[in-house]
Amino acid sequence: MRMYDIIYKKRMGNELTYEEIKFAVNGYVNGEIPDYQMSALLMAICFQGMTGSETFNLTELMMKSGDVVDLSSIDGITVDKHSTGGVGDKTTLIVAPIVASLGAKVAKMSGRGLGFTGGTVDKLESIPGYRTSLSPTEFLDNVRKCGIAVTGQSGNLAPADKKLYALRDVTATVDSIPLIASSIMSKKLASGADTIVLDVKTGNGAFMKTLDGSYALARAMVDIGKSFNKNMRALITDMSAPLGMNVGNSLEVKEAVEVLSGKGDPDLYEICIALSASIISAAFKLEYTEAESRCKNAISNGSAILKMKEWISMQGGDVTYIDNPERLYTSPIKVDYLSKTEGYVSEINAESVGIGSMLLGAGRKTKDDIIDLGAGIVLKSKIGQYVKKGQALATMCTSNKDLVSQCEKMLDSAFLITDIKPRPTKLIHAIIE
Amino acid sequence: MRMYDIIYKKRMGNELTYEEIKFAVNGYVNGEIPDYQMSALLMAICFQGMTGSETFNLTELMMKSGDVVDLSSIDGITVDKHSTGGVGDKTTLIVAPIVASLGAKVAKMSGRGLGFTGGTVDKLESIPGYRTSLSPTEFLDNVRKCGIAVTGQSGNLAPADKKLYALRDVTATVDSIPLIASSIMSKKLASGADTIVLDVKTGNGAFMKTLDGSYALARAMVDIGKSFNKNMRALITDMSAPLGMNVGNSLEVKEAVEVLSGKGDPDLYEICIALSASIISAAFKLEYTEAESRCKNAISNGSAILKMKEWISMQGGDVTYIDNPERLYTSPIKVDYLSKTEGYVSEINAESVGIGSMLLGAGRKTKDDIIDLGAGIVLKSKIGQYVKKGQALATMCTSNKDLVSQCEKMLDSAFLITDIKPRPTKLIHAIIE
Repeated sequence: MRMYDIIYKKRMGNELTYEEIKFAVNGYVNGEIPDYQMSALLMAICFQGMTGSETFNLTELMMKSGDVVDLSSIDGITVDKHSTGGVGDKTTLIVAPIVASLGAKVAKMSGRGLGFTGGTVDKLESIPGYRTSLSPTEFLDNVRKCGIAVTGQSGNLAPADKKLYALRDVTATVDSIPLIASSIMSKKLASGADTIVLDVKTGNGAFMKTLDGSYALARAMVDIGKSFNKNMRALITDMSAPLGMNVGNSLEVKEAVEVLSGKGDPDLYEICIALSASIISAAFKLEYTEAESRCKNAISNGSAILKMKEWISMQGGDVTYIDNPERLYTSPIKVDYLSKTEGYVSEINAESVGIGSMLLGAGRKTKDDIIDLGAGIVLKSKIGQYVKKGQALATMCTSNKDLVSQCEKMLDSAFLITDIKPRPTKLIHAIIE
Repeated sequence: MRMYDIIYKKRMGNELTYEEIKFAVNGYVNGEIPDYQMSALLMAICFQGMTGSETFNLTELMMKSGDVVDLSSIDGITVDKHSTGGVGDKTTLIVAPIVASLGAKVAKMSGRGLGFTGGTVDKLESIPGYRTSLSPTEFLDNVRKCGIAVTGQSGNLAPADKKLYALRDVTATVDSIPLIASSIMSKKLASGADTIVLDVKTGNGAFMKTLDGSYALARAMVDIGKSFNKNMRALITDMSAPLGMNVGNSLEVKEAVEVLSGKGDPDLYEICIALSASIISAAFKLEYTEAESRCKNAISNGSAILKMKEWISMQGGDVTYIDNPERLYTSPIKVDYLSKTEGYVSEINAESVGIGSMLLGAGRKTKDDIIDLGAGIVLKSKIGQYVKKGQALATMCTSNKDLVSQCEKMLDSAFLITDIKPRPTKLIHAIIE
């Protein structure tokens, strides 16, 4: 078998066999196939796509290239949730306690943030004492004892994906539906849960900018998961505006606690209930409406916030910060961003707000940046709201006043104020199973 | 400027600017841009193509990456001929003396053969004494004195093309019209002639298998040449069957001498006259029919064969071998290949004959193979001829009898004998200017 022939076959639009994909992926991982041949194959895939069978085989090979977490020692149904990433997306902090309080076992490995999207592990570190590095034994023990553990990704999950992604990142071959789907799913499958619910964000602040692309990606990932006998759901949710009112690490934990306490932003509540209900209905084979009502109850009867405290405490976090979230550290310099005109808030561009928050110190421009856990943006207005000139649209929090003007420029382009009231946008476009 | 953005721009089907192509090509040559980014760009080009302006810019940059031969010291019109390569293609040996005898100045650098297509320099080396490595001064002196010099490629012509071609060769990105056209033309333009005539072979024994592809390649190359103010012609000629009767180095020199002596295969004669007439009409701005009649005369009145002897002698070759070409060395073992059935010769597959000849020792499988200059195949039959069972279709010449059976297998697949007489094939499909 020759890599040349595999590249040529894909270039001509023919389906690669399991053996051919195995030859390419394993050869690439062990260094026998050079970068330049793999990047040519990846570019050919961007143009020719991959069949369902090719995508499945690629996913399996990447999954099997490293450790596969064994959750079989955990009684009950293990669940995992994955978001393709968005601005202000703190749903894991809310969904995990809801579904765990209803009996699902959340064994979640989360990443750190890069660019303008945040990472769950970073957010959790803003709770004093919270340990984001659990040993494998602790991780499983915690899930068994309280139904939730959220740790940083440890071990060697899907190293083939890691190596391929690094190459795609520098050869303009990232945005290909089968490549994205197999990349995400190889890691999710290696994480070992029975039920996987995917939150595919769509819109300008998301990786997938178009609804069509988001549908295709969701479909591809659900199909892969089903081939591996997983309970699958994918939600397509809006990311044209930030999710909720707070963007930034400790600010998002605050907002999550609010939602779990039955307060907080209704849009964020709606999406968290939809994600939780999807997990519960998939995991326990329940009607969606039944699952939804159980999730709402978990918030209203206080069992979800109780579960959050149990989880945080079990991972070493100081739960007095959950009881009094206003005690969570926020950066000292707080500057309002004022409306330059009067009218309806028609657009709050998620990407611009995300970059603005990053510029204030809340995110990493490069992997090695240190982030300011208390920095970020608190929105003071919602889409559709009528605002006066000089009214505060948002508050910027930072530890360095020199960063404010950079963020202001981003917010100038984020907010669109118009005379006409905008049509309400759909928050949840579809639930795919 | 970032290579990533250039790859992405081409992937999306947008036209690259001169500055962008320059950044990519020069960066690649000097090692700043890695192989894996260049191969991704090349694959994107295979799918998206290149505009005329992009192709022109790429050609110019590759040409300027190395030496550009200065032929301005030669009085008169310098001419060059390039063939995309075929089996039994000895036209340079015939065309050069014809056009030189008519006043054109042939300053030609030729390559060696690889795979199943031969190289002019290898063929010339079968003439005892002929020197294929001339110094630049000798080369120009010889052209001035006798109107022809044919030397091995020396100096550093289009090194960017060399590096890019080596990468294309291992990443399945060779067969792209703009990449092939710019590769060939960058070397031709660096060779410095005023008039360039291209022989684009088409059919199973050619690089371009389809007529459509051959037209597109010819058009692209002629357009590039014209942009550089060259007198351009391209012929599209058939390469489904070998050209002429002899395949192999000394065997082809023999056949060339025969044609120049007014004997030899009429198909080969026809193509050589068409190539020569195209050169003469382009170089001296003559009507094609006028040029054609001059070329025919150059053979019939003996001036072409005289010119050949002058050229060979000037490069150290022993012209008694031209006077008596049967004295040229041929390998000692000669075995006839017999027809297994009776009927019409419907096909003599050029590629199979080429590989058969290579297997006998006449060609190189890899760059470092040493070739047997006297080995090869002499065809004893032509397409359309009626042959009896047991009649010799070809004679195999080799120095090693163990090679005969391998060649026989190739000839088994080369010859197709049918009950129905085949339609005559067109030798010259088009002359493009």
